[in-house]
Amino acid sequence: MYVGKVVGTVVSTCKEKNLKGLKLLIVFNVFEQDRSRTEIAVDAAGAGVGDYVLVTIDGGAARMALGVENAPINNAVIGIIDYPELYD
Amino acid sequence: MYVGKVVGTVVSTCKEKNLKGLKLLIVFNVFEQDRSRTEIAVDAAGAGVGDYVLVTIDGGAARMALGVENAPINNAVIGIIDYPELYD
Amino acid sequence: MYVGKVVGTVVSTCKEKNLKGLKLLIVFNVFEQDRSRTEIAVDAAGAGVGDYVLVTIDGGAARMALGVENAPINNAVIGIIDYPELYD
Amino acid sequence: MYVGKVVGTVVSTCKEKNLKGLKLLIVFNVFEQDRSRTEIAVDAAGAGVGDYVLVTIDGGAARMALGVENAPINNAVIGIIDYPELYD
Amino acid sequence: MYVGKVVGTVVSTCKEKNLKGLKLLIVFNVFEQDRSRTEIAVDAAGAGVGDYVLVTIDGGAARMALGVENAPINNAVIGIIDYPELYD
Repeated sequence: MYVGKVVGTVVSTCKEKNLKGLKLLIVFNVFEQDRSRTEIAVDAAGAGVGDYVLVTIDGGAARMALGVENAPINNAVIGIIDYPELYD
Repeated sequence: MYVGKVVGTVVSTCKEKNLKGLKLLIVFNVFEQDRSRTEIAVDAAGAGVGDYVLVTIDGGAARMALGVENAPINNAVIGIIDYPELYD
Repeated sequence: MYVGKVVGTVVSTCKEKNLKGLKLLIVFNVFEQDRSRTEIAVDAAGAGVGDYVLVTIDGGAARMALGVENAPINNAVIGIIDYPELYD
Repeated sequence: MYVGKVVGTVVSTCKEKNLKGLKLLIVFNVFEQDRSRTEIAVDAAGAGVGDYVLVTIDGGAARMALGVENAPINNAVIGIIDYPELYD
Repeated sequence: MYVGKVVGTVVSTCKEKNLKGLKLLIVFNVFEQDRSRTEIAVDAAGAGVGDYVLVTIDGGAARMALGVENAPINNAVIGIIDYPELYD
């Protein structure tokens, strides 16, 4: 899992039927120096643009979080982060 | 998942039997600075060259999207993107 | 799996219900030259800030380690390292 | 999946018993600028040195392709590529 | 899978109970230019420091190789390599 920042959303009219109703967020890992690994994650936490979030990167885990057994997804936003505490 | 651009197709006559009939697209992640991670994804959305697409990277998810239980694939194009909205 | 160092914790009030009670640690791979792959791992070993730990990166493995069948996680801290022995 | 080039083979006498009889190919992703991600893939397509191949990177997918339920593998060569068509 | 070199071992007294008795090896991918992806793999082939080995990177595959259904691991050393044959 990683700490991501939500920086946008994606609109897709023509998509696999089990994706209907899922909110697609554009997130990047805040610890990465560049944004080349920016990815799309399905929202399971009610997150919005600007939020710092917890992203899980496992297909089974993502389907669990959303309660969707047949959606062909491979990650999900599973929490909104209040604050991280860094000591090093 | 990531936002990919379809830049080509792949033709393979000699392949695993459960791949028959699947369309193989060459896609790269639009957020990556170079194209070294360009990969092959199976089309589950009717996408073509030039399209911006949503790519899922999970074997189980890909088989779900295509309704093929036994195809040895590990990703799939699962949506065509109308437009992304970026705020940051 | 990799050898990680725990450098912080993450607090998330608004999260997926099956994450309740899990301790979220910020860890980075000690063999990496930069920290761009710093990630969040669930604690299954009683680890704390400053500890060198063994991190597993597989959703099924992480759920096993924690005995939580439905938590949408994809990694876990599964051991505290006494010392590594390097010969090369 | 990715387009790989087969550049060698690996011989291992002392190996896990379910690997017996499997052909181990050395392949690298042709889109990568360097070869640091060169890996070992099990042959499921009758490929040889010099061939351009389709490589799947998922344990379950690889076992499907080879029809070996218990082999501890995580990828496989599942097709020989006639030619890729690139438009961009 | 990749060709790794074993460069050390890891000792962990305080660890998840299903890891008991497993030998933890420090390995790095010999094709990588730097060692930033050095990782910990469970030994399933009787390998030791200095050996060139075949490493599988899939949780299910690793558990198969070791015959441990409940160990929260995500990779394993599954063969000792006699010699690789490179033609390119």
